[in-house]
Amino acid sequence: MADPIQLVPNGTLITATAEEGRHLAIKMSRLIIKATQPDPAVRERLRPVYAEDAGMLIAIGQIVAMEFATIAAANDYWKKL
Amino acid sequence: MADPIQLVPNGTLITATAEEGRHLAIKMSRLIIKATQPDPAVRERLRPVYAEDAGMLIAIGQIVAMEFATIAAANDYWKKL
Amino acid sequence: MADPIQLVPNGTLITATAEEGRHLAIKMSRLIIKATQPDPAVRERLRPVYAEDAGMLIAIGQIVAMEFATIAAANDYWKKL
Amino acid sequence: MADPIQLVPNGTLITATAEEGRHLAIKMSRLIIKATQPDPAVRERLRPVYAEDAGMLIAIGQIVAMEFATIAAANDYWKKL
Amino acid sequence: MADPIQLVPNGTLITATAEEGRHLAIKMSRLIIKATQPDPAVRERLRPVYAEDAGMLIAIGQIVAMEFATIAAANDYWKKL
Amino acid sequence: MADPIQLVPNGTLITATAEEGRHLAIKMSRLIIKATQPDPAVRERLRPVYAEDAGMLIAIGQIVAMEFATIAAANDYWKKL
Repeated sequence: MADPIQLVPNGTLITATAEEGRHLAIKMSRLIIKATQPDPAVRERLRPVYAEDAGMLIAIGQIVAMEFATIAAANDYWKKL
Repeated sequence: MADPIQLVPNGTLITATAEEGRHLAIKMSRLIIKATQPDPAVRERLRPVYAEDAGMLIAIGQIVAMEFATIAAANDYWKKL
Repeated sequence: MADPIQLVPNGTLITATAEEGRHLAIKMSRLIIKATQPDPAVRERLRPVYAEDAGMLIAIGQIVAMEFATIAAANDYWKKL
Repeated sequence: MADPIQLVPNGTLITATAEEGRHLAIKMSRLIIKATQPDPAVRERLRPVYAEDAGMLIAIGQIVAMEFATIAAANDYWKKL
Repeated sequence: MADPIQLVPNGTLITATAEEGRHLAIKMSRLIIKATQPDPAVRERLRPVYAEDAGMLIAIGQIVAMEFATIAAANDYWKKL
Repeated sequence: MADPIQLVPNGTLITATAEEGRHLAIKMSRLIIKATQPDPAVRERLRPVYAEDAGMLIAIGQIVAMEFATIAAANDYWKKL
């Protein structure tokens, strides 16, 4: 049996920079899709659908924007930098 | 008659870690679908639709992101960890 | 003429528990649909569309998540429990 | 020429109760559609599309949920009632 | 070459009233579409698609609701009026 | 191998004005699409799909509105201007 997926890399929403927060938002978005569809073969088959369809790319952008809003709030918007 | 569905596992939005908060967001998303469609046979029939359609997987990601935003705020973003 | 629909059951967003808040979110979502389409015959006809279509179930989940975010904030996330 | 549309009935987001806040959210949602499509004949033609399509009813529910989130925050969630 | 588009009319999110805030939300929504599709001929061609399709009108309502949430927060919900 | 994409131009959400915040929201939205589909040939092929489809333009407006909400909060809505 596969190891359970870690849904929050490093276990925290806190990042050093906004740039790292953005990367975390992308990773967390992908990990939810991985948790919902754990079969790598199916995900592999869906990959070109995501990446070559304008509507899908926009929808992924919407998830990342939502996840990033949460991460940015957690980091007080990195204001102290 | 089936027991009523518990919509918030453990009855609280408070979790020990961000990782557990993420799992709670996934569970709460699924429980709403269960409450809206209580028939397990119909849900079973819809399962492959969710899990093998890129657009559906993205839309599920959007719900989880929204539920997680609420859970993260409830936990003050687990900042004290 | 039918009585006007009460859109907020009990007239308040405050609930004793997160579980009750979740139920309120579901009810408030349904009452908006009822207000937009007051004809019970049409709503009855649409019911199987909602309940047996994966995309519709996900979209309902998105509304509930949004309503719940507001209810949870109103209750300070039930932190004092 | 028609009078300009008033987009915020009574000119304020403040309402006495959550119930009135919910009604305001519905009105404000409709007024945006009226501002985007000012021709009453076209809106009349579109009305059955909105009211008899499950997906449209859900999408309207999403707007109302968003408008209500803003109105509820403006009223501090009617906590003082 | 055309002048660059000003994306925030008057350069501020602060408005005197909620009504003006609502108008600003509509304008800001339109200006993003203008920035994404700067060709006036294409926009002119798309105009009837927006204005005569129920689903498009609802989707525009969703953007306006989101922009307005930000503007309303910027103005502390015009509470001091 | 291509340089990694910088997802947050200048590495910060803080901007001098609301106008610059709006431009940052547009750039950050585009950079997520670039990160999800790094192949410039595919992106070039999708460009007319985004720019000449009313539904896509609206969906892009939704992402920008979400990113801008975060940027505006980070800048305390540029209230001190």
